[in-house]
Amino acid sequence: MEDTITLDFGSGGKKTSALIEELILPLLSNEALDELDDGAVLAGNEKLVFSTDSFVVDPYFFPGGDIGKLAVCGTVNDLAVSGGEPKYLSLGLILEEGFPRKDLERILSSVARTAKEAGVMVVTGDTKVVERGKGDGIYINTSGIGFLRAPWLSRKAIREGDAVLISGTIGCHGTAVMLARNENLVEGNVLSDCGPVHRLAGKLLELGEDLHFMRDPTRGGAATTLCEFVEGTDLSIELDEKSLPLDPAAAGACEILGLDPLYSASEGRLLCVLAKERAGEALALLKSLPEGEGAALIGRVTRRSPGKVIIRTAFGGARIAARLAGAQLPRIC
Amino acid sequence: MEDTITLDFGSGGKKTSALIEELILPLLSNEALDELDDGAVLAGNEKLVFSTDSFVVDPYFFPGGDIGKLAVCGTVNDLAVSGGEPKYLSLGLILEEGFPRKDLERILSSVARTAKEAGVMVVTGDTKVVERGKGDGIYINTSGIGFLRAPWLSRKAIREGDAVLISGTIGCHGTAVMLARNENLVEGNVLSDCGPVHRLAGKLLELGEDLHFMRDPTRGGAATTLCEFVEGTDLSIELDEKSLPLDPAAAGACEILGLDPLYSASEGRLLCVLAKERAGEALALLKSLPEGEGAALIGRVTRRSPGKVIIRTAFGGARIAARLAGAQLPRIC
Repeated sequence: MEDTITLDFGSGGKKTSALIEELILPLLSNEALDELDDGAVLAGNEKLVFSTDSFVVDPYFFPGGDIGKLAVCGTVNDLAVSGGEPKYLSLGLILEEGFPRKDLERILSSVARTAKEAGVMVVTGDTKVVERGKGDGIYINTSGIGFLRAPWLSRKAIREGDAVLISGTIGCHGTAVMLARNENLVEGNVLSDCGPVHRLAGKLLELGEDLHFMRDPTRGGAATTLCEFVEGTDLSIELDEKSLPLDPAAAGACEILGLDPLYSASEGRLLCVLAKERAGEALALLKSLPEGEGAALIGRVTRRSPGKVIIRTAFGGARIAARLAGAQLPRIC
Repeated sequence: MEDTITLDFGSGGKKTSALIEELILPLLSNEALDELDDGAVLAGNEKLVFSTDSFVVDPYFFPGGDIGKLAVCGTVNDLAVSGGEPKYLSLGLILEEGFPRKDLERILSSVARTAKEAGVMVVTGDTKVVERGKGDGIYINTSGIGFLRAPWLSRKAIREGDAVLISGTIGCHGTAVMLARNENLVEGNVLSDCGPVHRLAGKLLELGEDLHFMRDPTRGGAATTLCEFVEGTDLSIELDEKSLPLDPAAAGACEILGLDPLYSASEGRLLCVLAKERAGEALALLKSLPEGEGAALIGRVTRRSPGKVIIRTAFGGARIAARLAGAQLPRIC
């Protein structure tokens, strides 16, 4: 790790891992934190899931959402994919001096609406203000508590032969935010997929222990998230390129911007791994909800390239999808 | 409330209240949030206390502490004074591009040491990086979960005749931070009181339901915190000016800087209100711990000036301590 922080360290890719593994974990290690999962499962009479995320998205309004909606969805989704039923949120605001009240009102309305949709209550909060030039309008931290419903979900439950599904199009959030930053570059109509996945996760729990693992592909995109599923194991994930659900407008914009949708964040999608016999049923469960209508079976778990994610191209070739190394898209969440 | 955010809105005083009451509560109202307490008490098999705080202190190293120690103590203390036994913390970092690794290491070491001292585990975290000029080195959010041990504690439990105690000197944290920002102004040796109060709170719980209410006097200082105890009630708090425990160096610095120690934040002190018959016992409990050796009985609850805090001066006069209106000390936590 270098001596100063660069934007890469916030990318969700290899540099972020280096920061966590070289600096944070050695100092703060404990059983719950060491799991390095999106949410911590805590002991107690009723098992809890606890998760936190700070949101620094630029711009704070973007097509399909805003930082308020994103801040609720981000934490709700971390709880949901950890097998938790999201219940309570905290809301920490860091505002820059001069921030317009009407923007704050719009963002808080969005927080309220999204919390209602996701069935969570914002129960505690905090507001700080920093001088002009020491922030960027608004940063939001949300932390969340959920009740654990599926304690068996684990990276370790993934088996050879398992099916890999995604609940909808990939990479729209990251692409929409990039376009919102560069209005003159591309004309298009790409909307962020930002939304809560708790209902999708809840549906999948009907599969019981045949559901092995779930995550939401945020920073680093689907490729980076799937790499984390098999890294350090003797399993690999093989994706069929032609089965990946792409949004045509987002795919077109990615091509022009030089981005790979597989590395572009989603903020309202769910990736899951489950027993292949239940794949059809799982697909039907996802598609039974409006937010899962674009769900697809995108690949399978094999032992062919241990620890790696392989993409089988439409032309019969194969390429390795490595983890995102630096910052493809800084500040997309 | 004005149309743009000013630094006053982060002061913890009247403007912060206006922001919360005019904008945040109408949009996010629910039973737990409406209490506007430092921690939210959540239903469940075991009752939980949940709290969040963002820390933007400038400078991030100051005599007696740093932003890491402060971030742990701030949330631990909110849980403890809410009657919770602090258990789990989240840690959200917002780093500015170019932040020195060695500073991050020093701050994280401080987080680790303070968490150990306070008996809490950091179980989940998140790191974001913003571009140079969009932050100020490091901002930290901690959220915390505790198990509720004293469900009877409440502003509503405060009674006429109750004793008011503080666990040590007032206003040292705010003063130390101001001095650290203005090295040339004053020479002095003022240390922040930053530290966990969970042991003090735990001791006081031995008083059972005779302990009525506790808070830590942070932003806005002891005066603002005590105003919140009686605001909107038919009770008043009368303080004896000569009994207020002042640190001589901090008091001297305040005089030179034009600050009032009563409005300067503490970050390791506890204010409590309890049945007057137990005041001596409470003082002994506080003094039995090193962090409570400076504890003092500072006043009592009366009905003389409903909703107000009155200071009886050494000369027999009296003055009203209103809530902090604007930003006496921006970014002291």
